[in-house]
Amino acid sequence: MEKIVSKTNARVKKWAKYKEKKYRDSDRCFLVEGEHLLEEAIRAKLLDCILVEEGHTYDTGAYPCYEVSSMIMRKLSDSVSGTWLIGVCHMPCPMDFVMGEKVILLDDVQDPGNVGTILRSAYSFGFDTVVLSRHCADVYSDKVIRSTQGALFHMQVIRTDLSQIIDQLKEKKIPVIGTALENASAMSTIEVVDRVALLFGNEGNGVSKELLAKCDETMYIEMHAFESLNVAVAAGIAMYKFRR
Amino acid sequence: MEKIVSKTNARVKKWAKYKEKKYRDSDRCFLVEGEHLLEEAIRAKLLDCILVEEGHTYDTGAYPCYEVSSMIMRKLSDSVSGTWLIGVCHMPCPMDFVMGEKVILLDDVQDPGNVGTILRSAYSFGFDTVVLSRHCADVYSDKVIRSTQGALFHMQVIRTDLSQIIDQLKEKKIPVIGTALENASAMSTIEVVDRVALLFGNEGNGVSKELLAKCDETMYIEMHAFESLNVAVAAGIAMYKFRR
Repeated sequence: MEKIVSKTNARVKKWAKYKEKKYRDSDRCFLVEGEHLLEEAIRAKLLDCILVEEGHTYDTGAYPCYEVSSMIMRKLSDSVSGTWLIGVCHMPCPMDFVMGEKVILLDDVQDPGNVGTILRSAYSFGFDTVVLSRHCADVYSDKVIRSTQGALFHMQVIRTDLSQIIDQLKEKKIPVIGTALENASAMSTIEVVDRVALLFGNEGNGVSKELLAKCDETMYIEMHAFESLNVAVAAGIAMYKFRR
Repeated sequence: MEKIVSKTNARVKKWAKYKEKKYRDSDRCFLVEGEHLLEEAIRAKLLDCILVEEGHTYDTGAYPCYEVSSMIMRKLSDSVSGTWLIGVCHMPCPMDFVMGEKVILLDDVQDPGNVGTILRSAYSFGFDTVVLSRHCADVYSDKVIRSTQGALFHMQVIRTDLSQIIDQLKEKKIPVIGTALENASAMSTIEVVDRVALLFGNEGNGVSKELLAKCDETMYIEMHAFESLNVAVAAGIAMYKFRR
């Protein structure tokens, strides 16, 4: 196992850049912290190599492994509590994306915590696909990965143009249900179907008008006080209704 | 209107301390930022005085008002985007607490974002009372107040011992439904009732065994994958079912 102690080591500098979206996107790589997420990444066949902090041992199997100093681990780690184990992973290839039949569409959901929580709920309720618009928070940020608790690795997740995806769903005869506060039906009046795509929008502005116009149905979640719900809560309530 | 330009002014030093829970608790005071929350605080009769940044005007009515320098506003403000308006408020008196008939009980929910989101959902779904155990995140922290979007000011909210509160609810014949992953009934099998108290637990450990034992019923939210949900999502799903 190769040891790295210098913070200016070329590999360390490359890995450290994966804290920023632009470098994750250009290399299509990201980091995961801790045993649980690392094992999920292995199962999803996305792991490239393993970094173990000096003084710790981990059965790395056939994966390339580097022992790094505590200082390097601190430099690469994002979580406050710290970790002694990091996995360097590659993003799944967009060519490998397979559209499922229980789909979540996110239109510019910008808070990483919300995106992560929605992914976690989606997996829990048996959804198989999550499609994010270009301005959604990055699913490969440390915060999102941690809040998904690994759910990210169990579903088809892709960032692309939602309008085209809705066209694909229509071809596959999967109904697209948008969420909106106006000109929509109460959720309790909507029939539950197995194959479905649910569309949720930006924290401040909701789903864009253009996308809502393309939906087969629009629904709102009934409330007592005319307030808005946090988007991750609204998504959870709707996903529970349409759960597998 | 009195002008304050010194960061070491005694009042400024006192207000700055309200960023910390221990000082909020000892003085029973807290700060709110921005027009919307300040107006909610006025309506809830909790506002004591108003701080306006130099160069801005605000109709402060009969409330005491101080014009403060931009530097002081930055010092007192917690939000990244900054604000030019702060309200100094007092907490409602525990003696004035009135138990409602649609109650949320939170057992050591520790993440401020989760507590804030639950308060927001509770208000949206017509719950009138939220009771927090001693180790819950502080509802008067800037982060919670912002994520409640003012909902905090529309409900009875108190921090106290949950076990005693459950006893009070039993006396009032309000059924207490706890949430748990084991030894519980599926939520869809639980009858909807008007008067109800829903009990949610800590992010890692759920509701304590002692409190679950005191519940009239326990329920779980049906999932496809055996995963856990974020507590604010779980609470939202349950509150939607029992909404007013």
